[in-house]
Amino acid sequence: MAENYQEMWTSLGLNLEAHQGLLAVLGDAYQSIYLSQKNRPKGMEYFDFVISEVHGLRIVELLNHKKAGKLIVGTFCVYVPEELILAVDGVSIGLCAGADVGSEEAEKYVPRNTCALIKGFMGFKLAGLCPYVESADLIIGETTCDGKKKAYEIFDEITKKVYVMELPNKKSEKGRLLWVDEIRKLGQKLSEMTGKKITLDNLRQAAEKVNAKRRALQRLSALRAHDPAPISGLDALLVNQISFYDDPVRFTTKLNELCDELEERVNSGNGVAPKGTTRLLVSGSPMAVPNWKLHSIIESSGAVVVGEEACVGERNFGNLLDDFSSPDEAMEKMADRSMGINCACFTPNDERFDDIRNLSSRLYAQGVVHYALQFCTPYMIEAYRAKTAVEAAGMPFLRIETDYSLEDAGQLKTRVEAFVEMIRDGKRS
Amino acid sequence: MAENYQEMWTSLGLNLEAHQGLLAVLGDAYQSIYLSQKNRPKGMEYFDFVISEVHGLRIVELLNHKKAGKLIVGTFCVYVPEELILAVDGVSIGLCAGADVGSEEAEKYVPRNTCALIKGFMGFKLAGLCPYVESADLIIGETTCDGKKKAYEIFDEITKKVYVMELPNKKSEKGRLLWVDEIRKLGQKLSEMTGKKITLDNLRQAAEKVNAKRRALQRLSALRAHDPAPISGLDALLVNQISFYDDPVRFTTKLNELCDELEERVNSGNGVAPKGTTRLLVSGSPMAVPNWKLHSIIESSGAVVVGEEACVGERNFGNLLDDFSSPDEAMEKMADRSMGINCACFTPNDERFDDIRNLSSRLYAQGVVHYALQFCTPYMIEAYRAKTAVEAAGMPFLRIETDYSLEDAGQLKTRVEAFVEMIRDGKRS
Repeated sequence: MAENYQEMWTSLGLNLEAHQGLLAVLGDAYQSIYLSQKNRPKGMEYFDFVISEVHGLRIVELLNHKKAGKLIVGTFCVYVPEELILAVDGVSIGLCAGADVGSEEAEKYVPRNTCALIKGFMGFKLAGLCPYVESADLIIGETTCDGKKKAYEIFDEITKKVYVMELPNKKSEKGRLLWVDEIRKLGQKLSEMTGKKITLDNLRQAAEKVNAKRRALQRLSALRAHDPAPISGLDALLVNQISFYDDPVRFTTKLNELCDELEERVNSGNGVAPKGTTRLLVSGSPMAVPNWKLHSIIESSGAVVVGEEACVGERNFGNLLDDFSSPDEAMEKMADRSMGINCACFTPNDERFDDIRNLSSRLYAQGVVHYALQFCTPYMIEAYRAKTAVEAAGMPFLRIETDYSLEDAGQLKTRVEAFVEMIRDGKRS
Repeated sequence: MAENYQEMWTSLGLNLEAHQGLLAVLGDAYQSIYLSQKNRPKGMEYFDFVISEVHGLRIVELLNHKKAGKLIVGTFCVYVPEELILAVDGVSIGLCAGADVGSEEAEKYVPRNTCALIKGFMGFKLAGLCPYVESADLIIGETTCDGKKKAYEIFDEITKKVYVMELPNKKSEKGRLLWVDEIRKLGQKLSEMTGKKITLDNLRQAAEKVNAKRRALQRLSALRAHDPAPISGLDALLVNQISFYDDPVRFTTKLNELCDELEERVNSGNGVAPKGTTRLLVSGSPMAVPNWKLHSIIESSGAVVVGEEACVGERNFGNLLDDFSSPDEAMEKMADRSMGINCACFTPNDERFDDIRNLSSRLYAQGVVHYALQFCTPYMIEAYRAKTAVEAAGMPFLRIETDYSLEDAGQLKTRVEAFVEMIRDGKRS
C-alpha cells in the first residue's frame, strides 16, 4: 500500500507510524504464508490485490460511498442481516479484529483473559489502526457471547456508534419472535439514519445480491470436495474473509471466475496438493483477517483444509434467504435463516454436530480440527460435546485452543502433524 | 457431622472417604474463619448449627420430603422463581458450587479456564461430594452466562436432571415477554412432575413465604447500616448463603430472631468492630458456600463489610414479589421482579451502577470492593464501567479478580489493606 493514502489515513485519525508498521508486518506475513504457496489458481490474483489494498483502495471506495451519502455499517457477526443494510443502499463491512494489535490499550478496558478477537477489535480502534471503524457511521453488535455483549458497552463509550441486536439463547419459537423483532427494529434504525424506506423492491434487490454472493461461496465450498483439492484451505479462507469486506457484486463476479478456473482444475485433475493428501475440516470460532495461523500450520503439516464449519465459512453462506412477498415476510425469513445458523451461542446446539458430520461427509474430510479461540467460552465448552459426537461417527477429532500469538505455533504444529500422521496411518491399515 | 449419616451418604452414592475429607477441611475453615470471630450475636448459633448439619440433618429432611412425595429442585440463580417450586409443594435448594473440589474431574468436561463456580458444581457432582445434587429430582439452570449456559448441556448428560430457562440478554419489553413465557413453561413442567396444579391459592401461600424471607433479609441488610456494625459481613454473608438451602419458614423465623437481637445491639451501641471502622460494600459475582475468602480477607484487614450487591446478597432479596390476582398475573409479576434484578448478564446494565451507589449511600459504605470470579466474563468486563460510575460518585473502588484457591490470599490482603488505609487516611485529611 502506497504513500498516497497517507493523507486519507491521517484524515481518519489513524496512528500513521504504527499503521505503517502493521502494514509492513502484514505484507511480510502475506508473502510468507500466501504468496509462497505452490500452484495457486490464477483467480486468486484478484484476492491478493484486495488484501494488498484492504486499508487503501477499499477505504477510498468507502469514503466515496460516504461522500455520496451512503451509510457505512460495520458488523462482527453473520447474524446481522446484510440484506437490510443493502436495502437502504448502505455498505456492510467487517471490522478489524484478526490481529494482536493494541492489546496493551485494550487491556485498559477489558480483562487480559478476554478472547483475542474482542481484544483485537478494541485494540485496532484504540491504537488507531482500523480505517474501517473510523469510516463506519454505525457499528452493529449482537449478544452472541458474554465477551462481545459486555465489550460492546465499552466500545460504544469509545466510538459512540454501537447498536446492539439481541440474539436469543435458544432456538425456540419465542426466541425467533424476539429476533424477528430485533431485525425489524434494525430496519427502522437504518431507515431513520438514511431516510430511505425499506421496500419489497429494495429488499429483493438486496437479497439477490447477497444470495448470489452466498451461492458463489457455496460453489467454492462444493469444489473443495474434489481430490486433489483444486484450492488450498488458506486461499479459500482468504476468499471467505474478503467476503465480509469487499463490494458484494464485484466479489461475486470475481469468485465465480475463480470457481470457473477451479472447475477446469477439477476436470483436469490439477490440484494444490497430491491426490490422497489428508483432508481436514476446521470447525469452531471465527477467523478474522489476518488470522491465518491454524490453516497455515495444517497445510504445512502435510494436510489440506477442505472446509470451515465456522462463521468465516459455512455458517456465513450455508443458508440462502428464502423468497418473500412483503417486507414483513422478508424480516421473518431473515430470522428463519439466522435460526438455522448453528452457533455455539445457542443452547442446546446439537444441530451443529450434524453440520460437522454432514460437511465432513460432503467434503470427504478425514478428520476434524476443532478450533476455539482462547477464552471463547461457547466454543471452548461446546468442544467437549462436539468431540463426543464426531468421534461417535468414527471421525478423528483434534481439539485446539489458541490465540493470535505465534508462541505456541511449534507446539501446535507438533500436535497437528501427529494428528495427520495418525489419520494417514489409519488409512494404510 | 457424625457417623450416623454414613449410611445415607452411601445410599446417595457419595464418595465417603473424599466426603469425610471435605467435611474435615470445612470444619477447620469454619472454626478459624467463623468461630474465631469476637462478639458474635447469639442468634448466629442457629446458623452455625445449620452449617454444621449442611450435609447431614438438612439432607435427612430433604430425603424425608422426598419420601413424602415432594419434588426436590436444585437451582443456581436468583432468576429462578422459588415461588413456583413452593406452589407445587416442592423444596428449593442451592447446589454445591463454592469450593475447589473435583477440579481434575471437572476439567475432563469443561476447560481449565472456566470460572470456579462452574468448575465447582461440576466437580462436586463428579467427585461424589454433593448430597444436594444427588437428592434433587430436577435441576433448573438458566442462560445467564456462556459458561453456565454451555456447561448445563454437559451437566445434563451427567445428571439427566437439568432443565434450562432462557433469560433474555436485554431488559426490553420483548425480552420480558420471553421470560414470562419461560416462567409459565417452568410452571407447567413443575405441575407435570408433581401432578399438582398451580393455583392462585398455592401461589399466594408460596409468595407469602418467599416474601417473608426476603423481608427478613432486607431487615438484616438495613441493620447493617448502623455504626458500629451489629454483625460482621462474614456472618451476614453466611445468613445469605443459608437462605438458599434452609427451610424458608424456619429460616425466616430464626433470621427475625437474629434481627431482634441486632436491634438491641444497635440500641445499646454494641458492635462487632469499633465505631468508625472502615465500611466496605462488596459488589459482583455470587459467593456460594463455603466461599468466604474475600469477606475473611477484608474483615481481617481492619474493615467491615456492610453489604453485598450480589446474587448472594441484595439481588436475592432486594425486590419483593408484587401482589397478584390470578396465576397468570403472578407469572407476569415474577418476570417483572426478575427484570428488576440487575445482573451483569444484561446489556446494558447501568441500573446496577445505581444500585451500587444507592446501596453504598444507604449503608454508609466508604468504598466498593468489586469482586469478579476469575473467568466470570460478565462481571469481569462490567467492572470497568462500574469503576467509572462509582468513582464518578466520589467513592473509592477496588477491583478484584480471584478464584477459590488461597494462593493469592496474601497478595489480596496486601491490596485490601492498602485500600482500607487509603480510605482511613482520606477520612482523616
